[in-house]
Amino acid sequence: MSIPFAQRLNQVETSAIRELFKLLGKPGIISFAGGLPDSAMFDVEGIRAASEQVLQNDSAAALQYGATEGYQPLREQLASFMHSKGVQGLQPEQLIVTTGSQQALDLLGKTLIDPGDKVIVEGPTFLATIQCFRLYGAELISAPIDGDGVQTDRLEQLMAEHRPKLVYLIPTFGNPSGALLSLERRRKVLELAVRYNTVVVEDDPYGDLYFNAPPPPSLLALSHEVPGSRDWLAHCGSLSKVLSPGLRVGWLVAPPELLAKATMCKQFSDAHTSTFAQATAAQYFRAGRMPATLAQVRAVYAERAQAMGDALRQELGDAIEFVQPQGGLFVWARLTGAHGRLADGNELASRAIDQGVAFVPGAPFFCANPDVATLRLSFATADVAKIREGVGRLAQALRG
Amino acid sequence: MSIPFAQRLNQVETSAIRELFKLLGKPGIISFAGGLPDSAMFDVEGIRAASEQVLQNDSAAALQYGATEGYQPLREQLASFMHSKGVQGLQPEQLIVTTGSQQALDLLGKTLIDPGDKVIVEGPTFLATIQCFRLYGAELISAPIDGDGVQTDRLEQLMAEHRPKLVYLIPTFGNPSGALLSLERRRKVLELAVRYNTVVVEDDPYGDLYFNAPPPPSLLALSHEVPGSRDWLAHCGSLSKVLSPGLRVGWLVAPPELLAKATMCKQFSDAHTSTFAQATAAQYFRAGRMPATLAQVRAVYAERAQAMGDALRQELGDAIEFVQPQGGLFVWARLTGAHGRLADGNELASRAIDQGVAFVPGAPFFCANPDVATLRLSFATADVAKIREGVGRLAQALRG
Repeated sequence: MSIPFAQRLNQVETSAIRELFKLLGKPGIISFAGGLPDSAMFDVEGIRAASEQVLQNDSAAALQYGATEGYQPLREQLASFMHSKGVQGLQPEQLIVTTGSQQALDLLGKTLIDPGDKVIVEGPTFLATIQCFRLYGAELISAPIDGDGVQTDRLEQLMAEHRPKLVYLIPTFGNPSGALLSLERRRKVLELAVRYNTVVVEDDPYGDLYFNAPPPPSLLALSHEVPGSRDWLAHCGSLSKVLSPGLRVGWLVAPPELLAKATMCKQFSDAHTSTFAQATAAQYFRAGRMPATLAQVRAVYAERAQAMGDALRQELGDAIEFVQPQGGLFVWARLTGAHGRLADGNELASRAIDQGVAFVPGAPFFCANPDVATLRLSFATADVAKIREGVGRLAQALRG
Repeated sequence: MSIPFAQRLNQVETSAIRELFKLLGKPGIISFAGGLPDSAMFDVEGIRAASEQVLQNDSAAALQYGATEGYQPLREQLASFMHSKGVQGLQPEQLIVTTGSQQALDLLGKTLIDPGDKVIVEGPTFLATIQCFRLYGAELISAPIDGDGVQTDRLEQLMAEHRPKLVYLIPTFGNPSGALLSLERRRKVLELAVRYNTVVVEDDPYGDLYFNAPPPPSLLALSHEVPGSRDWLAHCGSLSKVLSPGLRVGWLVAPPELLAKATMCKQFSDAHTSTFAQATAAQYFRAGRMPATLAQVRAVYAERAQAMGDALRQELGDAIEFVQPQGGLFVWARLTGAHGRLADGNELASRAIDQGVAFVPGAPFFCANPDVATLRLSFATADVAKIREGVGRLAQALRG
């Protein structure tokens, strides 16, 4: 006899990427595979000062159980942070703090998805979203993207055809695509949400990581221009990419009824997010350190993105094509097969490991019709010299 | 048009207790209503020293993404902590860290429960477990308890009749019952798990809070005496009641396949528990502060439990009956109706608020056949003088 597991587990499999990550321990590997920020850029002193301040002035609250909705001073800081990014009239009560934005996705799945419900995602999209929604029984449908993000005409056709329960997008420097949804398409997405009475989830962990110019306003910031759209819009934010993933502080903005249901589900998921981490994050904002931190990570990632783009063009030439990213952590590239070169990302990934460089092949990021010629390369954690060396090794691997 | 929520939400309602808690802000109220430890007893200096140490020596790991299974040094400390409590041969790899033990319950629900599955719980039991499992579609069945915990003969009948997916117990100083499952019954529970090939979940957040003598070994500690029982046993632990709820550090021990599935579900629930909180907890253990902290909270709660028991006997006499708790946070009492006094916990709760004292009526803790004469009184957060005064007010409320 063995334990009879729930049937929902049959919807998901262990990710192919996890297997790849096991190989990353090999000595000397230069990794473009991660999806994480560079720990060398954490503002350790700022976080130390914030946590010490919290334990000195507010330990009883910071170490005690807290409201499921979140630690009120952090909700206030986050509302004000969102305001500084163009979101109008957001009250602290219109967001809840989540245990990373991953939990916001989980709560949306739990709150909204019945087995068999259709969910439209970008092709490609964030793997953990695909799996998270599948665990609730969602049937995923892939909307194609290009350099301007999701193709809204195709998105509309898919919405009309499938009447999905929700549409999930990463409009700004998406993972893995790095794509930036154009302003015009953003307006269109909001109009579609209203026209089809369909919840649109905007996952926005990367929007703060822009390089030369700020991206167009988030769907949330833009929603006041499209009457009724706020009633169908959920927005997930995160401190993981800009401050520290280890705090596990994310947030969810949603219409009141959806937020109330998500809060109820959170009550039974983890009661609340660490008050110690929340209070530390709140104090970090209050101390005014966030703007300088953002400026620094933007500058460092911009330099690395440039270095990676330059090296790829120089070393791989027309064997690869990609849009130079304007923010985020990733170059999303496609092997062209020019000059008879390899055009299979999985095969290249395994050859690359032998050459001492790692990246993630793009195919697993598609919930349907994978493009096997694609690759995701993170420029976040290697410095410029390592980036050049790693791309050199990649070129070597491609030559075979 | 409004958002079409998932059908699973129809399984749960907002708890009656939440409504009560809104009244607790009334000035001057003495509260026996909470389920939380006393924040005055948090070892703030120990936690401050631990978090500072972590940020000084290990900030890159403590602020970065971490393994879904948990921060390895904490897994090692927890395995060793469990060993000190009589659990033999537990390897760090046999447990995962969860975001409070509430998340362990959620992961068990996600991993095991299909809609319509039967789950046996104690009557009464922890409210958030009932709601958590119902969200996964469980049909809950109530097994009666007495002063020695769940009645194992009734439990066996219910298991034979309903073939449940799992049995959920809080064997040691249960919430709300405060009951202590006898050693003999503990053995019986493990035998039943094997005989009926049924997962038994031991939720154990209170086992460290014993007063005069340690309780019998946990089901987990006892499992090596009952061949095969470890294959059917899941154990949830927590630092919330002994160190700090705000860290949100719990853990789950389970058979390998179940642990692997729970880890996969956790990956899509919140990726991992705050590494900052985990590293702080690990350092707290490493610094050797836990034994003194445990000794202190035991002594304080023992004194308060005694004061509450004495005051109840003195002030309410035979209008109330209860077993003097040997640990935990709660007195579970029953109104006898003697001398024509009130025997309805809900009515008494509302009268008590008028008199300036709060407690939680017992009925909502039953998933079926509520005993409306019951009350849950926490002695954890009021000092001895306040406990006496609060019980005096309760007697006043009962006199009407």
